[in-house]
Amino acid sequence: MIKGNDPILLTPGPLTTSLETKQAMLRDWGSWDATFNRITASICEDVVDVVHGKATHVAVPLQGSGTFSVEAAIGNLVPRDGKVLVPNNGAYCLRILKICKYLGRAHVALDIPEDKHPTAAMIEEALVKDPSITHVAQVHCETGAGILNPLAEIAEVCAKHGKGLIVDAMSSFGALDIDVSKHPMDAVIAASGKCIEGPPGMGFVIARKAVLEKCQGNSHSLAMDLYDQWTYMQKTTQWRFTPPTHVVAAFHAALGQFKAEGGQPARGARYRKNCETLIEGMGALGFRTFLSKEVQAPVIVTFHAPGDPAYTFKDFYEKVKARGYILYPGKLTQVETFRVGCIGAIDHNEMRNVVSAVAETLKEMGVQKVAPKLLAAA
Amino acid sequence: MIKGNDPILLTPGPLTTSLETKQAMLRDWGSWDATFNRITASICEDVVDVVHGKATHVAVPLQGSGTFSVEAAIGNLVPRDGKVLVPNNGAYCLRILKICKYLGRAHVALDIPEDKHPTAAMIEEALVKDPSITHVAQVHCETGAGILNPLAEIAEVCAKHGKGLIVDAMSSFGALDIDVSKHPMDAVIAASGKCIEGPPGMGFVIARKAVLEKCQGNSHSLAMDLYDQWTYMQKTTQWRFTPPTHVVAAFHAALGQFKAEGGQPARGARYRKNCETLIEGMGALGFRTFLSKEVQAPVIVTFHAPGDPAYTFKDFYEKVKARGYILYPGKLTQVETFRVGCIGAIDHNEMRNVVSAVAETLKEMGVQKVAPKLLAAA
Ligand SMILES: Cc1ncc(COP(=O)(O)O)c(C=O)c1O
Ligand SMILES: Cc1ncc(COP(=O)(O)O)c(C=O)c1O
Repeated sequence: MIKGNDPILLTPGPLTTSLETKQAMLRDWGSWDATFNRITASICEDVVDVVHGKATHVAVPLQGSGTFSVEAAIGNLVPRDGKVLVPNNGAYCLRILKICKYLGRAHVALDIPEDKHPTAAMIEEALVKDPSITHVAQVHCETGAGILNPLAEIAEVCAKHGKGLIVDAMSSFGALDIDVSKHPMDAVIAASGKCIEGPPGMGFVIARKAVLEKCQGNSHSLAMDLYDQWTYMQKTTQWRFTPPTHVVAAFHAALGQFKAEGGQPARGARYRKNCETLIEGMGALGFRTFLSKEVQAPVIVTFHAPGDPAYTFKDFYEKVKARGYILYPGKLTQVETFRVGCIGAIDHNEMRNVVSAVAETLKEMGVQKVAPKLLAAA
Repeated sequence: MIKGNDPILLTPGPLTTSLETKQAMLRDWGSWDATFNRITASICEDVVDVVHGKATHVAVPLQGSGTFSVEAAIGNLVPRDGKVLVPNNGAYCLRILKICKYLGRAHVALDIPEDKHPTAAMIEEALVKDPSITHVAQVHCETGAGILNPLAEIAEVCAKHGKGLIVDAMSSFGALDIDVSKHPMDAVIAASGKCIEGPPGMGFVIARKAVLEKCQGNSHSLAMDLYDQWTYMQKTTQWRFTPPTHVVAAFHAALGQFKAEGGQPARGARYRKNCETLIEGMGALGFRTFLSKEVQAPVIVTFHAPGDPAYTFKDFYEKVKARGYILYPGKLTQVETFRVGCIGAIDHNEMRNVVSAVAETLKEMGVQKVAPKLLAAA
């Protein structure tokens, strides 16, 4: 067995989970068993409640990582002759475009710089210009840079024009307010290993029931056929194919803790405090955030890499890891950055500690110029 | 939290795993971290070794249940203009036919009764009759009834006719001998939660490298693009999308125990003893197996349901469960059966105990006629 200390993950999922959540995996469950299937049903109810969808929406869980659920949502909810508009300000928007290409769904990108967000006006313009668009696929928090996109106003403009809205809420679900009862959405997609603080291994699509009911035959894939998964589960209470039973049980435990903490408002407040503590502490060391304050989601923060020639990410990563914290590389192509997550079973004290670990690391590396080489255009 | 005793799973996956395997899930891993990626690399090497493929084959792991890997193998390894022959003697063969239909791959079924297996001669006849067939997709142990299909001779006939062979070895991998160095196979598919005794949540395709290299652009799906997963992993050592980190770590622990036990020969011997003990004990109670001895795989045993009107599977299941054992329903359409798995971190003593639990349950239910209502045609 590989041994070692347990570092804190400051990554956007997998993230640090509570011991209680991990301990829920110390039991083997039969996937046919009624007790296990009540766990599945309870998860589905809970995630629908997080987005206030009880009256209109149903949750369909799916094996695999979050991307599997995004692909399943596009493949099932967009008819084969549909057309998808993707407001594109980062890596996960690009991934949706790639999915559309694989699936043969017509698509068009609305390109936006990585430090800016789309506005309702921009989307309206695109919809008016191309009436053949049937759906908008919007990433809520674009985890690439960590930017928050204005979901509520985008939902309004989609509703006004009668377009379906599919939301990749992978890194925001449970942390940021999403309310399908106020802002119409056809689907909200997330996964077990993000802000609910479960282990990774399953995703879910919270779909408007009236829409999902019409999706039979759309899917390009048996394994990702959401309609089939949903109808089978209604009939039998079971997953169609073997569920990741341990992950499901742990996700259920994580949801229990999420509710006990006070649900999304409390979870969001803890993450905001984490984020503020981090940015303040790193700022005092001379680090600059890639995003301006107004568009920064309290999920993951992109920092410019120090301009000092003594800095390399690999060395920095290893030395901060030796101090107990796992950071994340940047995902931007133009500027050198690194990322620090604010999510997981951690609080602002961990954020203070990681700032100390970074300060010590810089000293050890002999990094003096913390200011970036290149500043992104303001 | 839902509480209860921990019953022994006598199901064909998820199954009972060792405490050491489950405890490997008590740690959070960063998916970008080098230590975690060494775990992935070690798993890939180990599973290739299980089928003696080091010189010719590579393993590509995939998130999701086993069906996801089966679909990925068909979607990637069969070109879009290929045609698949599916020798069909049960539910998992039917699933492959369904996958071909979803993916738009031409396919033809060779139908065989559920208690019989295909022979090399039958497959040869089908290949000669339809030269447009490019691949044979063969289920090794058809878990529906528990029948063992003659893989080695099927591999020979495929090689003789220059056809690709894709093997669903989900429930046999690690328990029964599979040797790609002696019997040519393009792909062997299995998953974490079967005879290696890990938790469910990931599958893998062990593919002939020379074949996989030519598969770029075949995949119908981004998430299931094996070629892309493979090439990305070679470049970066990482999974393309978030891996089920806890499941991966536990599967790695399970593989360590598998090797320590003595690998496939030892694992197979333990399961055979489990199977014999079970069939003998159940036979003494009056239960008849659906399959004859010669074709019974030591993986899961299908028993005819008792003919007594006091018997219902639901009641039987609950009462045996109360005694600590989870059974599995039958998967046959023509005759009433139930199934008992012989796989998992259990030995023949558990098999003796489940026979006792069944005996007590029959008494409690007032079942006197254990012989089946209908006997399957011999
Ligand atoms: C916004 C967003 N979408 C999709 C994904 C993909 O999820 P996964 O890596 O689980 O496939 C992520 C992962 O971080 C994400 O942040
Ligand atoms: C032979 C065979 N193929 C495929 C599968 C499907 O695997 P999963 O349920 O993990 O999708 C199974 C599951 O038991 C199986 O036994």
